[in-house]
Amino acid sequence: MPALRAVGAGKAAMWPVLVARSVVSSRGFSSAGAVRMAAVKSFHKDEPQAPILKTQSIPGPESTKRIKELQDVFETRSLNMIADYTKSVGNYIADPDGNLLLDVYAQIASIPVGYNNPALAKVAQTPEMVDAIINRPALGNFPSHTWASILKSGILKYAPKGLDNVYTAMAGSDANEIAYKAAFMYRRQLERGGPDVDFTPEELESAMRNEAPGSPNLSIMSFKQSFHGRLFGSLSTTRSKPIHKIDIPAFDWPQATFPQLKYPLDQHAEENAKAEQASIDEVEHLIKTWRVPPAAVIVEPVQSEGGDNHASPSFFQKLRAVTKKHGVLLIADEVQTGLGATGKFWAHEHWNLQDPPDIVTFSKKAQTAGYYFRSKDMRPNKPYRQFNTWMGDPAKALLFRGIVDEIERLDLVNHTAKVGDYLYGKIEALAQKYPGHFQNLRGKGQGTFIAFDNPKRDEFLAKAKTFGVNIGGSGASAVRLRPMLIFQEHHADILIEALEKIVKAL
Amino acid sequence: MPALRAVGAGKAAMWPVLVARSVVSSRGFSSAGAVRMAAVKSFHKDEPQAPILKTQSIPGPESTKRIKELQDVFETRSLNMIADYTKSVGNYIADPDGNLLLDVYAQIASIPVGYNNPALAKVAQTPEMVDAIINRPALGNFPSHTWASILKSGILKYAPKGLDNVYTAMAGSDANEIAYKAAFMYRRQLERGGPDVDFTPEELESAMRNEAPGSPNLSIMSFKQSFHGRLFGSLSTTRSKPIHKIDIPAFDWPQATFPQLKYPLDQHAEENAKAEQASIDEVEHLIKTWRVPPAAVIVEPVQSEGGDNHASPSFFQKLRAVTKKHGVLLIADEVQTGLGATGKFWAHEHWNLQDPPDIVTFSKKAQTAGYYFRSKDMRPNKPYRQFNTWMGDPAKALLFRGIVDEIERLDLVNHTAKVGDYLYGKIEALAQKYPGHFQNLRGKGQGTFIAFDNPKRDEFLAKAKTFGVNIGGSGASAVRLRPMLIFQEHHADILIEALEKIVKAL
Repeated sequence: MPALRAVGAGKAAMWPVLVARSVVSSRGFSSAGAVRMAAVKSFHKDEPQAPILKTQSIPGPESTKRIKELQDVFETRSLNMIADYTKSVGNYIADPDGNLLLDVYAQIASIPVGYNNPALAKVAQTPEMVDAIINRPALGNFPSHTWASILKSGILKYAPKGLDNVYTAMAGSDANEIAYKAAFMYRRQLERGGPDVDFTPEELESAMRNEAPGSPNLSIMSFKQSFHGRLFGSLSTTRSKPIHKIDIPAFDWPQATFPQLKYPLDQHAEENAKAEQASIDEVEHLIKTWRVPPAAVIVEPVQSEGGDNHASPSFFQKLRAVTKKHGVLLIADEVQTGLGATGKFWAHEHWNLQDPPDIVTFSKKAQTAGYYFRSKDMRPNKPYRQFNTWMGDPAKALLFRGIVDEIERLDLVNHTAKVGDYLYGKIEALAQKYPGHFQNLRGKGQGTFIAFDNPKRDEFLAKAKTFGVNIGGSGASAVRLRPMLIFQEHHADILIEALEKIVKAL
Repeated sequence: MPALRAVGAGKAAMWPVLVARSVVSSRGFSSAGAVRMAAVKSFHKDEPQAPILKTQSIPGPESTKRIKELQDVFETRSLNMIADYTKSVGNYIADPDGNLLLDVYAQIASIPVGYNNPALAKVAQTPEMVDAIINRPALGNFPSHTWASILKSGILKYAPKGLDNVYTAMAGSDANEIAYKAAFMYRRQLERGGPDVDFTPEELESAMRNEAPGSPNLSIMSFKQSFHGRLFGSLSTTRSKPIHKIDIPAFDWPQATFPQLKYPLDQHAEENAKAEQASIDEVEHLIKTWRVPPAAVIVEPVQSEGGDNHASPSFFQKLRAVTKKHGVLLIADEVQTGLGATGKFWAHEHWNLQDPPDIVTFSKKAQTAGYYFRSKDMRPNKPYRQFNTWMGDPAKALLFRGIVDEIERLDLVNHTAKVGDYLYGKIEALAQKYPGHFQNLRGKGQGTFIAFDNPKRDEFLAKAKTFGVNIGGSGASAVRLRPMLIFQEHHADILIEALEKIVKAL
């Protein structure tokens, strides 16, 4: 077990190093991995060779004690596992009992480059970070003299092609909501006749009463099974599960059917194409007829919380075309798909669009949030329209810069594309062996953004821990894999071994 | 000028120290302060004795260069001043030209204990902080084994009386929105018959269509001139200015008139009491008749963005009574008023309520956000109803703990009450001398939470910089003072001297 606690600076140069693989636990892991390859390069030198299981079940006694302590002061009914981050390392999450699980859930897909990444630890200890933490500015009013350079070398460095402007935010939900606000302002500005046409007294006055025309009857269209957040505007576009939405007032906004593709895709090409066309037709119909006209359509490149539902590049190209045709903006919600996990930095690069989406939102692996947008003309026409006290956080922007540097240094996007292919092939083989347990395998050519359905999904996820792996679910029956970008072939081998054990035990 | 850059650890013990006061600038500052008191205790030993003005105007040449660089990549139309935080110190904000202004705006009331506070710098450099920054958890699923203790020693340490439960968030807007969600869930649960009564199939299904009964026709009532944030739910309750609301779809939620008190309060007791009663009557009328019934009323202890509008403890007592009578929750929005600036840790302590508000939201000086709530029965009845990926941020929670420790160590709440009285008295004297320039002085007995109206407000604020002070406005004509909690009598003297110079120059 690694002695790693708060990781000191200066370790970055030690990645990657050679790590001999061998069996470290008598429970659950054979020496198969070691047989397959005597030694593999690991990005994190302090990672164990395999998961370590110290207690008969999880939570063990120490975790149970900590959970009891926590439930008096915080929400623990959604608790999955109590963690000890000081002992977590690379792809492995630790708990207070000394268990160390291979983590392919990664804080709901939000840990980019491994626990206790030494390069990020270095960033976290710079005087620049200390300054950002203790002197948090109101960025719209009092940005620091270094803010431009922080943005350019970080958040804007891999801005989606064609979208070189950004508003920064705090998390995925508010990033989507400020994107919606931008879409509404843009739409009303067009209707009004341009940026120089002033608001009418009636608009100004009715807005204060939450009534049209000042508060316009406009909507954001989303897709069934989509997830875009849980604040009031974003939740109105979220269509994942009733438990996310029930009892919360919502806007009368339209939802279109997301194509329900059949897998494997190549065996169902014709009916899938039909489903996609039907979805596009419905989008167009709703744009033309919905009682509250949409200013934008928001779509995830892969519907993630909704069960890892994919669509083809052709679908997204048609979606771009139909939105453009009707003057409706297209927002790509890359909160979960962004930053490399699909084998491209941005998942919408897979779409091969001529015209990019108008807006791309990001969060999770970025450790901060915001939206990129197409051009300066999509900026609100006056100051203080897209504004709040903090407008993001320089400390998180510095962290994002560190993440981008690490992605670059280790070529993690290409790496993830390759490892994803490797992993997909292995699961495909498992699916042939256990077809009932690996249904609708999906995510081919999408990096490690892979999922499958299992009829006993919840039991599957619980069992995974007893074999040393932390896995998440989504939708009704999907097992979704969300490894970090430093997930490697030898981790895939461990995962595959565990997956087989899990289904054998179900 | 202080040589302070990124502040090292270990300086905390040096606060407070004796600082000789003398004149350091030939522009704008007389030796009056030095005459009044030869030496005063300053909380921050590196603070200058007075503002330092290096350039003829602000922005100076270096700032102008930085602003130009920034405007290509970020919103600068709302820019007030570009700052150099590495050189800012205590109550003083620096710019890249070497100007150092007494800052009584403090990042829109969000810097609690001074720029480059050494104790916070120490917190920012702990291994615990590094861990929190680089291993950010999904708190609802994978909280760390230290999360309970971080909450108890920080966010929960000064929880409002009677409200010992908390959900954590990211900023004021989403803190308010999750509070609204809690209010809606609570209301529907009562209507449904308790936490054990299950949702009906109709509710589950209609929620997915954003329709009642699943997405209920319920509202949050707020007050005219209030500010509660800019996301879709919070913006529907915000009633400050059209520029905040225009073009954004809003819920059909009710607004009541906030009493428009006349100042000084003791000279208008009778008509103010009438205005307050009229407001309470309107609240009750709207509760009984509004077409979308309110589940909660949200109110700021002092309407801050809306122009520093105060109401009496009696008003708030009646508001508590009328909401309780009708089974409507009362939410105190302490985003701007919380953490000591009014001379109480929470401004609603001034209300002397028998029953506390049901929910209190916080952010800004807390450097994190969330809502405190009355009792466990106000928790949603099932997990994953109040949930998102991050649910707050342990790094910011550690910072809040550091802030609370500093408030405690320096007794800053009592300190601010006293300094506020001192400052109020001085401005009262100015108001007698220049009645046209210091109209409707307000905030007596409310710590440093002081404001007045000036007919040339925007010019007033611009002029302030030329006399070495950074001041903010609110509402239509208010000059609002929002010094940090480490603002002291000698800072008040500097401010008073500047205020007089400003009005003389107007």
